[in-house]
Amino acid sequence: MDIMQSALEKHKEWKGKIEIVSRTTVNNRDELSHAYTPGVAKPCLEIQANPELSYELTRRHNLVAVITDGTAVLGLGDIGPEASMPVMEGKCALFKEFAGVDAFPVCIDSKDTDKIVKTIALISKSFGGINLEDISAPRCFEIEKRLKEIVDIPVFHDDQHGTAIVASAAMINAAKVTGKKIEDMTLVINGAGAAGCAIAKQFITLGIGNIIMVDIKGIICDGDEFENPSHYEIAKLTNKNKIRGSLADAMKNADAFIGVSKPNLVTADMVKSMADKPIIFAMANPTPEIMPDEAKAAGACVVGTGRSDFPNQINNVVAFPGVFKGALAVRAKDINEDMKLAAAYAIAGSVSADKLDADNILPDPFDRSIPVAVAKAVADAAIKSGIAKKKEYTL
Amino acid sequence: MDIMQSALEKHKEWKGKIEIVSRTTVNNRDELSHAYTPGVAKPCLEIQANPELSYELTRRHNLVAVITDGTAVLGLGDIGPEASMPVMEGKCALFKEFAGVDAFPVCIDSKDTDKIVKTIALISKSFGGINLEDISAPRCFEIEKRLKEIVDIPVFHDDQHGTAIVASAAMINAAKVTGKKIEDMTLVINGAGAAGCAIAKQFITLGIGNIIMVDIKGIICDGDEFENPSHYEIAKLTNKNKIRGSLADAMKNADAFIGVSKPNLVTADMVKSMADKPIIFAMANPTPEIMPDEAKAAGACVVGTGRSDFPNQINNVVAFPGVFKGALAVRAKDINEDMKLAAAYAIAGSVSADKLDADNILPDPFDRSIPVAVAKAVADAAIKSGIAKKKEYTL
Repeated sequence: MDIMQSALEKHKEWKGKIEIVSRTTVNNRDELSHAYTPGVAKPCLEIQANPELSYELTRRHNLVAVITDGTAVLGLGDIGPEASMPVMEGKCALFKEFAGVDAFPVCIDSKDTDKIVKTIALISKSFGGINLEDISAPRCFEIEKRLKEIVDIPVFHDDQHGTAIVASAAMINAAKVTGKKIEDMTLVINGAGAAGCAIAKQFITLGIGNIIMVDIKGIICDGDEFENPSHYEIAKLTNKNKIRGSLADAMKNADAFIGVSKPNLVTADMVKSMADKPIIFAMANPTPEIMPDEAKAAGACVVGTGRSDFPNQINNVVAFPGVFKGALAVRAKDINEDMKLAAAYAIAGSVSADKLDADNILPDPFDRSIPVAVAKAVADAAIKSGIAKKKEYTL
Repeated sequence: MDIMQSALEKHKEWKGKIEIVSRTTVNNRDELSHAYTPGVAKPCLEIQANPELSYELTRRHNLVAVITDGTAVLGLGDIGPEASMPVMEGKCALFKEFAGVDAFPVCIDSKDTDKIVKTIALISKSFGGINLEDISAPRCFEIEKRLKEIVDIPVFHDDQHGTAIVASAAMINAAKVTGKKIEDMTLVINGAGAAGCAIAKQFITLGIGNIIMVDIKGIICDGDEFENPSHYEIAKLTNKNKIRGSLADAMKNADAFIGVSKPNLVTADMVKSMADKPIIFAMANPTPEIMPDEAKAAGACVVGTGRSDFPNQINNVVAFPGVFKGALAVRAKDINEDMKLAAAYAIAGSVSADKLDADNILPDPFDRSIPVAVAKAVADAAIKSGIAKKKEYTL
């Protein structure tokens, strides 16, 4: 039975990958009087007097909403709110299993940016953080930007920033393996959607030498006209030499490639045309831009994909649980650039020097010390950058 | 330490009364590939092809949203979304503990009917049912009415219908204890908000003789002018003899009193003015309209309150877990009058004849067979009335 069929069978067995349980028993009148009426009136009144106490007296302190509109789910595209639920539930299960963070899936039945923003804002006081998920570009940029302005809890579009953090961590270590310096690297990013643009920005904060962004129409170059408004900003930040052309043109002499695009867009010849010791992160899901064996045969030195069945899985799972755990621990108002960079270095640094090699640029995602290390780095960065409401924390 | 203070301490210990857990482990690549990428794509595609499968492949089949705007929380009034969370979490804990139903609290940060309706509708595909909670009248009527029209899952305002179901069950048994017949009874309902109006309607379907509704301005009488638009309908359905006056006037010669109003509005003299063997359900929370000992001293034969520390607690907890469990079991599109009436009779019928007396008109709320009996009655009623998508079920 292939993985797709066996996953379907598993989902039939699970009948939901998450479950809501009670943290208290209600087996007698005394317990009921404490958990519910009349006793529950007291914590209500305490929170009414000081809304900050909602973080002490309810689950909000550990609770993230995983919210989608179902428009960019995995590589499947716009499949709608009901069909996106298995992914959102899976994400919530990962939040809990990897970092002990409670997460709840909310699928919004609209593709209208304004409606999505308003809906999320109106339910935001039930949560401690908002993980936006699988929302298509360019809508996702505006949704995140507007939400960050109006809600006072962290908002984080994982497809953008989680992917950028893990790709950065992977590149920090791939640079060590190949002897390349990030500040001298030319990086081709194929796919200028949500993830591609976020990766570009994160690599600029990392200090990368040059980025060439490629989308379906070719290389993005300042001075061109774009449908996606965010590409004007990206064009100014990338492509220092203002080259134009196709993906194949971009790849010539590049040090590294990151694909967040479609299956099979990268050929062996493209890999062969790259600079010495090419780094290939082919992250299209479920089928990468080039299969690892083909990339290696064409000379790639380090190859990563988004899949769990190949080495170097560049999977957000090493980032988002720890990022939110850290942000929640210090009640950060946002997840800012410093926190994201701290997360990337924490992930990269968790691969010990004796284990680091071309097939081991990322830590074992099942090592439960990773989210703790990430959370600590993120919490410390939040405190340092002055956006933490708590200065002391336990993880 | 009084109950309020000890409940506050408990809430500090609990740090949230509910928790979201994973129903699957993700301890290795195989498990991750099934619960998340790439395997999760398959259930997504199945649901995209047939959205009904969201009830088979996600938690939706057992999941209720407990939604409030924080405007009518307990007897505390409009305390806002954050402060209402302890009650909503408590309700969710009760759903799970009493009936195994997963429930998640959502507090909406708006008092605008239109915004509340749209927000709930836009997130409704993440849930199998919607329990509206602690929303003030008359807004709650329109919110429920409009939602019932636009979403295809059950919508149930528990403060109205849950209260009405349990009050009906209690009255069915109080009638047995006192030898009164419901069809001959005159019932005074004090408080013409959400609960009062719903109780009146439910008692009319029960076949009660006469109802006299009283609100803050006095007896509601057809022909009068009302601020609350729903009172025009209520005035037509009640007060057969078109009497006018105060609560004291209404109480004279009445058989039964139900209070869903404010503390201490009923005096001993009012009880004394009632017909033989008065039935008093003083349900204001946390302090009833009249304390049970005072009512009994004034001649009340059966006294119930909303509190767990007196006999005959008329608490929704014996209704809502089973009502939703039954509705979810057969995937009912609504919770209709037949289902509510079936729930009331199931609750009343679960008190065995040998136990039934003036201090035992309702079943032990901690008897876990009650929600199962209610669920069965509700599921059967849904099937019989043709609004169940499933004709066979297990509880």
